[in-house]
Amino acid sequence: MNLLNQISTVSIIGSGNVASVLGKAITDADIKILDVFSPNISNSKLLAEKLDCNYVDSIEKLNTVSDLYILATPDNEIVNSITNLPTITGIVVHTSGTEPCEILAGKFENYGVFYPLQTFTKNRQVDFKDVPICIEGSNDKTSDLLVKMARKISNNVVLLNSEKREYLHLTAVTVNNFTNLLYSIAHDVLEEKGIDFALLHPLIKETALKIQDVNPHLAQTGPARRNDITTVNKHLQLLEKHPEFREIYDLLSKQIIIKHHG
Amino acid sequence: MNLLNQISTVSIIGSGNVASVLGKAITDADIKILDVFSPNISNSKLLAEKLDCNYVDSIEKLNTVSDLYILATPDNEIVNSITNLPTITGIVVHTSGTEPCEILAGKFENYGVFYPLQTFTKNRQVDFKDVPICIEGSNDKTSDLLVKMARKISNNVVLLNSEKREYLHLTAVTVNNFTNLLYSIAHDVLEEKGIDFALLHPLIKETALKIQDVNPHLAQTGPARRNDITTVNKHLQLLEKHPEFREIYDLLSKQIIIKHHG
Repeated sequence: MNLLNQISTVSIIGSGNVASVLGKAITDADIKILDVFSPNISNSKLLAEKLDCNYVDSIEKLNTVSDLYILATPDNEIVNSITNLPTITGIVVHTSGTEPCEILAGKFENYGVFYPLQTFTKNRQVDFKDVPICIEGSNDKTSDLLVKMARKISNNVVLLNSEKREYLHLTAVTVNNFTNLLYSIAHDVLEEKGIDFALLHPLIKETALKIQDVNPHLAQTGPARRNDITTVNKHLQLLEKHPEFREIYDLLSKQIIIKHHG
Repeated sequence: MNLLNQISTVSIIGSGNVASVLGKAITDADIKILDVFSPNISNSKLLAEKLDCNYVDSIEKLNTVSDLYILATPDNEIVNSITNLPTITGIVVHTSGTEPCEILAGKFENYGVFYPLQTFTKNRQVDFKDVPICIEGSNDKTSDLLVKMARKISNNVVLLNSEKREYLHLTAVTVNNFTNLLYSIAHDVLEEKGIDFALLHPLIKETALKIQDVNPHLAQTGPARRNDITTVNKHLQLLEKHPEFREIYDLLSKQIIIKHHG
């Protein structure tokens, strides 16, 4: 059993967006990052500079004394990474929304999940104080230590089991990836017509802010919400030369109509 | 021809969200609203109180001296409203994203479109200074007067013809109504699983803010973007009992994959 009182030293595996933004938040909270490893050596080096720590060129060379090892790798590299980690006594966590906690079972005594729910872009630092961090530990002591550490970097820490985290991740994909696709196709059509996409910025912002106060079901507006088939059909006609956009417009309008008019 | 130098007095037809929020922005800019009419008399009365102006119980009774008459009605009531307006010399505008300017032709010498591009909720005042207002006038003098007035309530005034406005409205529906539907189905699934929807608030906000700086095509992330079919299929499995959500997940993931992986 782990005898730590708190997590003071960290190693990071990975050098992508999550590693970079989470690593920065950790050092900003005065928790010491000892070293980083990533198969991409030049990225590791850059990240080590940013975090003022060492980098190693093979995962076996990571130090063995960190209190916490954070796997900020793509999901399909988690298993490979843990196979090659040196023998350690620290807690090992992954940062995946999808993979169960138990993917880390067997090799480590104390393990868990440290899932920050946000979209990260390497050179865009978000305010981590608002980022929900979803924690799961292989035992209560591990959960406690992870929660305690997470609270140093965020005001929004929750315990969440693997099943719930999977649903949360699914909905995160929905409100982020799919929403961004909608922004993107709107951008393309406006560009084609010589209209400035920035005209939509205030609407996009208000749409996102409104549902922080209002249940999104009640915030729904627009032609489909009003069952205004004339406008829906006009729009479908405008999209005759954009069959993929048209398919999305058609499906989403139908579902709004079903949701609100049965 | 209109001999006005500026628009100083306004009548509003309608008492819904646009009438209410736009009316407030107009009075805040020290432009006098003389009267309002809406078939919903109790709403008219409330709005007239809010705007410190008169209300009339039939459209024919509106005063005939306003510089500007704003039709903030549902699209399908525009024609009916203009048929019943008293004989006036002021400019008449509608506020529709979809209807052409020319729907007002024939009856008035000076007419146009005054389309504020935002989602309005009655008791939620937005900062109108950021709201794009799209102007079209039946002649240059009318366009000039409308632009001059719009600039008193917003820093984001553009001239836009009816065709472009129609495409802008179509994309506004996409980034507002469809995005809100995605929020809404995410909300429903999380509620069913006992997970707090507020966990998604920071992600929703950051998704919307990110594309104010980054082209949405470049901001795209997630399983479909990475062509991570394993995760996409896991999510589709999770949605087996939510066939409508599943259909949306499937279509939007496919389109992200096509857009980014051809």
